[in-house]
Amino acid sequence: MKPNVAAAKAALSHLELDENPATIRNKSRDFFWYSPVLKAEMDHLEADFVVNPKSEAEVIEVLKTCYAHDVPVTCRGGGTGNYGQAMPLAGGCVMHLTGMNKIKEIGQGYVVAEPGIIIKEMDAELKEKSGQELRMFPSTYSQASLGGFIAGGSGGVGSANWGALRDLGNINRLRVVTMEAEPQVHDFTGEELHRVSHAYGTNGIITEIEMPLAPAYEWVEMFVRFDTFRAATEFAGALTKEPGILIKLASVYAAPIAHKYFQRVKAHVTENDHLCGLMVAPQSMDGFKTLLDRFDEGEVIYRSDKVEWDRHPGPVYEYGWNHTTLRALKFEKDLTYLQVRYGGDVEKVMNAYEAFKDDLYMHLEVMREGSGISYAGLPIVFPKDKAELDDLVARHEAMDCMIFNPHRYTLEEGGRQSTDQRQLDFKREADPKGLLNPGKMIAWDDPEFDYADMYSYAKILPKPQEEPAQ
Amino acid sequence: MKPNVAAAKAALSHLELDENPATIRNKSRDFFWYSPVLKAEMDHLEADFVVNPKSEAEVIEVLKTCYAHDVPVTCRGGGTGNYGQAMPLAGGCVMHLTGMNKIKEIGQGYVVAEPGIIIKEMDAELKEKSGQELRMFPSTYSQASLGGFIAGGSGGVGSANWGALRDLGNINRLRVVTMEAEPQVHDFTGEELHRVSHAYGTNGIITEIEMPLAPAYEWVEMFVRFDTFRAATEFAGALTKEPGILIKLASVYAAPIAHKYFQRVKAHVTENDHLCGLMVAPQSMDGFKTLLDRFDEGEVIYRSDKVEWDRHPGPVYEYGWNHTTLRALKFEKDLTYLQVRYGGDVEKVMNAYEAFKDDLYMHLEVMREGSGISYAGLPIVFPKDKAELDDLVARHEAMDCMIFNPHRYTLEEGGRQSTDQRQLDFKREADPKGLLNPGKMIAWDDPEFDYADMYSYAKILPKPQEEPAQ
Ligand SMILES: Cc1cc2nc3c(=O)[nH]c(=O)nc-3n(C[C@H](O)[C@H](O)[C@H](O)COP(=O)(O)OP(=O)(O)OC[C@H]3O[C@@H](n4cnc5c(N)ncnc54)[C@H](O)[C@@H]3O)c2cc1C
Ligand SMILES: Cc1cc2nc3c(=O)[nH]c(=O)nc-3n(C[C@H](O)[C@H](O)[C@H](O)COP(=O)(O)OP(=O)(O)OC[C@H]3O[C@@H](n4cnc5c(N)ncnc54)[C@H](O)[C@@H]3O)c2cc1C
Repeated sequence: MKPNVAAAKAALSHLELDENPATIRNKSRDFFWYSPVLKAEMDHLEADFVVNPKSEAEVIEVLKTCYAHDVPVTCRGGGTGNYGQAMPLAGGCVMHLTGMNKIKEIGQGYVVAEPGIIIKEMDAELKEKSGQELRMFPSTYSQASLGGFIAGGSGGVGSANWGALRDLGNINRLRVVTMEAEPQVHDFTGEELHRVSHAYGTNGIITEIEMPLAPAYEWVEMFVRFDTFRAATEFAGALTKEPGILIKLASVYAAPIAHKYFQRVKAHVTENDHLCGLMVAPQSMDGFKTLLDRFDEGEVIYRSDKVEWDRHPGPVYEYGWNHTTLRALKFEKDLTYLQVRYGGDVEKVMNAYEAFKDDLYMHLEVMREGSGISYAGLPIVFPKDKAELDDLVARHEAMDCMIFNPHRYTLEEGGRQSTDQRQLDFKREADPKGLLNPGKMIAWDDPEFDYADMYSYAKILPKPQEEPAQ
Repeated sequence: MKPNVAAAKAALSHLELDENPATIRNKSRDFFWYSPVLKAEMDHLEADFVVNPKSEAEVIEVLKTCYAHDVPVTCRGGGTGNYGQAMPLAGGCVMHLTGMNKIKEIGQGYVVAEPGIIIKEMDAELKEKSGQELRMFPSTYSQASLGGFIAGGSGGVGSANWGALRDLGNINRLRVVTMEAEPQVHDFTGEELHRVSHAYGTNGIITEIEMPLAPAYEWVEMFVRFDTFRAATEFAGALTKEPGILIKLASVYAAPIAHKYFQRVKAHVTENDHLCGLMVAPQSMDGFKTLLDRFDEGEVIYRSDKVEWDRHPGPVYEYGWNHTTLRALKFEKDLTYLQVRYGGDVEKVMNAYEAFKDDLYMHLEVMREGSGISYAGLPIVFPKDKAELDDLVARHEAMDCMIFNPHRYTLEEGGRQSTDQRQLDFKREADPKGLLNPGKMIAWDDPEFDYADMYSYAKILPKPQEEPAQ
């Protein structure tokens, strides 16, 4: 099964192809460099060609043609994934979907859209036309696509109220095209959504999406300063728990993050200040202030509806989620981050805070979760090498803190470190030749893979220096 | 301090007074008869006159005049309270507020309204003008006033998502008039809201209300049948916990309630069927069905968006909250109900279910609460007399199930059985003569009252047969 790239390209020449080598290189890369590990492993990857379909019919044509010629297809939305999700491990075709960017229908409480629409633009149109917005978005709001969020993301700004993207009810319907001799079109709802959501485009291409909506409010964005990390953490948790206070974001940045890495906040905090970044609905500001007053400390130093700072800090959500690390990276090249789940217990967070005092800067995002809330950690870490990073991961796991490793490009290693049988089963149906984003689903390539064996998995185009490019 | 009713009436004769004795009697009564205990104690109560103010200025005039003449004032909204809250224990003036029924301002996420507006009419106007609705309403939706809900209610349809009315953020601002020589007008927010919310109008009259709003959806109302009470309870709890599934109501009616008391449901269930009554946002129906499928049992027998029954059952919320008991009362005169808090633990509910199998029919409402959810019980009970009712209460308390006793007309006995210092302090300020709804706040009359001493408190006009009417 050798790909016949030339034949596929020729057959697709009536579609919009990118010919410029710089463009091809660009569209073969995402935010993988975010991880020093991935940076080293993936920097050389490049597609053979890029195609920009404008409709589901064109997507079908691309998939059918590449199937016939055994050419791998890696789908790309905004290209903001930070695990190299959208990078063509095996070369071949990158199918770039931002040309499929229309809202097809807006109803009370829901929207139907094409996958390539940029989330921020989508929200602007939704707000203008219906006073609504998406329930949640990644902090890469201004660049990420809706399809990429569903296929590659997990939650974000809005999860403080609505939970994770995978929680029931947060995606309503996905239309999916398979990669077969005759591509099929499926409409998935219910349990079937999990076949393709967060599957990195390894088992089907999403061409239409129905999402639930929430009302668009003029969210009040705030920074609140605390003397202790415990107080900031407890307050963010208590705020998220209040059923009558509507919020969209509750981030906690331990000292010295704000002073060290938040340029426009620096003047307003000391290196000992712990900060919460919040988004609260305007009609919940009275409840918010009342709750804050019940805490001994906690001082609002910034609010977006009454900006008193000389330099506008920009949107507060661009300080949270993965943007915290991004801001830190602008100051120090040698840091990176981890993804930790502490559950809802503040004491567990505090134990980790104490245990890792010398190793990392704590950063939390509070999310609603079935039984209450959950603290998701995205701590900033400074490992000298892979061994030190592994050690940090192992020490977290020893404390029963679950890790989603952001230094792996496979679905399983970056996720729950186990096979998702539903995704695998559907890949067998939908991608019999294994051409969709190959190398990303371990279960497909190596069902016996042992996840204890960190970083040993690699199914990737060899680096040019190791083997000359063909 | 003897009331001079005649002088007060004369001074207020330019306002709208009700003169008809039948109207006066009517407007002196509420749903107190709901409790056999209260029925016996309060049936004879009657105001001396009824006034219907149309504005805050008129409210002030009534309060000032009645203050001058030492006439008690009991405020009345829709008169649907079921603890006799709006009944004039000491006679005097009933001030009926449904003439103050205007919406003053609608914004994105909030509304400002007068207190006498009927909640259902308010929601209809909100929906028409802005696509919004109140977050929650009592099941007496079609008759209750907004002011009465705030001064006398605790939560209801919508609490499955937003928690209790007293939770932070569920009331934004209350404008309150005091009863002094010169009545004062206060605007309360934050902690000050608790001075007058759920205070039965004992320490101020609410003349303007700002409430948060939620989007108005075409809620899908459903009945779901289960073979076991446990399954129904677990499902209702799980549904309420899901952060991504938007619901407004999750009631559980143990067998044989539905078969015995729900006339239009009867044909569709057996006497062994346990039922859930639900309201789910249309955009959450996919999530709902997926969750239901994860449960072994659970069958949707009715949904409002596809009615297949010969006889329409009416709104499902009129089967929940206190309406469950109301429906039962139509079939059997000698039953009543209790109000129990079980917390979030299904096992505690199940223990109570087993322990009280021979004494009551279980009815639960699931609410969101800080740490997760809480099961509120409104079981139907069949006590022969007060002694048996007391015994049931005591047995619940022995199992650590908190009781809010709906067979008492005082604030404290029907509530948390303790003095609310904020309410008492404000009464001292706002009602120095103790003329506002006298007899309802024990702490005012008898600070040393021992709550262990159930039913011993009574500050009420004597019954005519005991003492001839003056
Ligand atoms: C600074 C920073 C902050 C971030 N914050 C968050 C955050 O808060 N929450 C979060 O969840 N993620 C976050 N991310 C990760 C990422 O930005 C988001 O998941 C984003 O939604 C991805 O969208 P995209 O369009 O850029 O997807 P891409 O990177 O283009 O693609 C992501 C994956 O989805 C696949 N894919 C894309 N479109 C389709 C389709 N139509 N059908 C099938 N597969 C498809 C791709 O093949 C790839 O595997 C962050 C990343 C960075 C660098
Ligand atoms: C069948 C049934 C079902 C019910 N379901 C619910 C439920 O789901 N949830 C719930 O919370 N309650 C419920 N109740 C109780 C009651 O219906 C509600 O609390 C309702 O909101 C009361 O509103 P109302 O206008 O009828 O008040 P009223 O009965 O007129 O008054 C209630 C109390 O508020 C005071 N008051 C009224 N207006 C003002 C004002 N402007 N300023 C100061 N004080 C004022 C009155 O003096 C009185 O003490 C139910 C009752 C029945 C009989």
